[in-house]
Amino acid sequence: MSIATVSRVLNGRGNVAPETRELVESTVARLAGPGPRPRGPARPIAGSVFVRCPYVLTDYFGVIVSSIAETLLLYGRPLVLDAGESAQRAPVLPRLPGRAGLAGAVLILPPEPAADIETLRSHRFPFVVVDPRLPPPRDVVAVSAAHAAGARSLTAHLTGLGHRRIGVVAGPREWLASDARLAGHNAALADAGVLSGPGLIRHVEPTVEWGRRAAGELLDRPDRPTALIGFNDKAAVGALQAAAERGLRVPHDVSIAGFDDIDLSRATTPMLTTVRQPLAELGRMAVTLLTRLLERHELEALHVELATELVVRDSTGAAPAG
Amino acid sequence: MSIATVSRVLNGRGNVAPETRELVESTVARLAGPGPRPRGPARPIAGSVFVRCPYVLTDYFGVIVSSIAETLLLYGRPLVLDAGESAQRAPVLPRLPGRAGLAGAVLILPPEPAADIETLRSHRFPFVVVDPRLPPPRDVVAVSAAHAAGARSLTAHLTGLGHRRIGVVAGPREWLASDARLAGHNAALADAGVLSGPGLIRHVEPTVEWGRRAAGELLDRPDRPTALIGFNDKAAVGALQAAAERGLRVPHDVSIAGFDDIDLSRATTPMLTTVRQPLAELGRMAVTLLTRLLERHELEALHVELATELVVRDSTGAAPAG
Repeated sequence: MSIATVSRVLNGRGNVAPETRELVESTVARLAGPGPRPRGPARPIAGSVFVRCPYVLTDYFGVIVSSIAETLLLYGRPLVLDAGESAQRAPVLPRLPGRAGLAGAVLILPPEPAADIETLRSHRFPFVVVDPRLPPPRDVVAVSAAHAAGARSLTAHLTGLGHRRIGVVAGPREWLASDARLAGHNAALADAGVLSGPGLIRHVEPTVEWGRRAAGELLDRPDRPTALIGFNDKAAVGALQAAAERGLRVPHDVSIAGFDDIDLSRATTPMLTTVRQPLAELGRMAVTLLTRLLERHELEALHVELATELVVRDSTGAAPAG
Repeated sequence: MSIATVSRVLNGRGNVAPETRELVESTVARLAGPGPRPRGPARPIAGSVFVRCPYVLTDYFGVIVSSIAETLLLYGRPLVLDAGESAQRAPVLPRLPGRAGLAGAVLILPPEPAADIETLRSHRFPFVVVDPRLPPPRDVVAVSAAHAAGARSLTAHLTGLGHRRIGVVAGPREWLASDARLAGHNAALADAGVLSGPGLIRHVEPTVEWGRRAAGELLDRPDRPTALIGFNDKAAVGALQAAAERGLRVPHDVSIAGFDDIDLSRATTPMLTTVRQPLAELGRMAVTLLTRLLERHELEALHVELATELVVRDSTGAAPAG
């Protein structure tokens, strides 16, 4: 192979066969070892961005997708959308690298197993994961909210109000977000010198109906919790319903809090204390990171966490005496 | 022009210059007069579908876009998305006919003036309008909810409960949906032998905050209305807040109802009586109609209205005595 060819690859010029480019790049990477690779400025990869969000686009997912759309508009890149629950059944990831006109992808809360994500990565197809459901593989670019820190600040707010028996309507056990939020919750409890009691955590799907049932079970315990935390605002709306069904006043008899800060959290009576997720910022950051991948920059922080914010409203108050 | 050429056009075969095809089609249409044109089966136009929804994709718009995405998945057509509020400022319609790879478009609540829609139509670019903001031009395919019938059933529900002074937090005056819903409201009042009182209608943007303000003004009138109707569920949530601020109990002192049946309507206390819009069905119908346009079928009902449904919950009750 000529020096001119290697130079063309390193300077990102186009007139090199893909196999040759790959060979040069992998050799250079091996020789360079860890640390930034000696790459010059490169022309970005042309084409559309595939956005996969196989859920109904309501307050949560819809806000992320809208912000991705607005940011791609600024970059002048078309957005090819894959959305709606039935999209979960379509095995689209294996076909992405071969699809004409696609430069890269943003995968929102991908339902695929980690192995599928790693396979996509091994094809050198540029993509970014938003809000990963499972711990993302090491060399996959991922953006998520600071789940643990957000949950910790929420539980610290409750322990500051005197709560010691706090029930948690957690998300599915295997979700990264459930695990991180429980870790933050337990850290705040430990800060207050409390160990999470057995039986105070229920793992359910994060919907109003599941939230209502799980909260009802927690409120029916002989050692009734004085506060309930929902995995999200929907689960917290269910918890409000469960409290109302039992004649419990919020926050006088029981405090209730959510997570997300979607519209729903301001429609309830009382309005929900919650943790604001930076949904629009998650979308913008995903596009920014993908754009850097398409310009063949190295990314230093492959897993990016964006700050959450505690929003105190009227559904949380002092723990009842005794 | 040869008979063979005319035959090729009428049978939808491809080897005809676009100018020739257009000349043949317009001549045949002129000769055929009104009624179905003598077209044979045609190969559908290949390509992606451009979906323009220049709003944040929350409960309302997000559900429509999700259902469009799921239906296009069934047809195997990629969806190119244009969404988010900043997309309103981008003049995309004039460029659609020339864009490579696009077969057609779905325009959701287009903010563009009618003239822009007519220009797009005059380029023979296939598209369908969902939930038109303004009365759509005669030969544009449009799908919307049965606004008038829905509003009429809601007001009839209220007059049946004895309400005679009903305040309306209406949408912007120039919107087709505002006009149609007020027509339905007035029809139901007339059925009960009531004329809408002066000053009982406020035209505002359909948000929680505008709903709260407009409802407050209506509730502060000396002849306080016994019921309030919001343009949508968000405006009705604002009305619930305005009632609570004035110490009025819902529905004991004042009944409140919304429109749409989004998640928000089930998170309030009391839950909202509302009119369900067929959001997912609007999306599916739009794709079905667009697919028929792409297969070059004639559409008999250019303006399609889908049924709405009254959903009675706890925010409406008997009019207070006196």
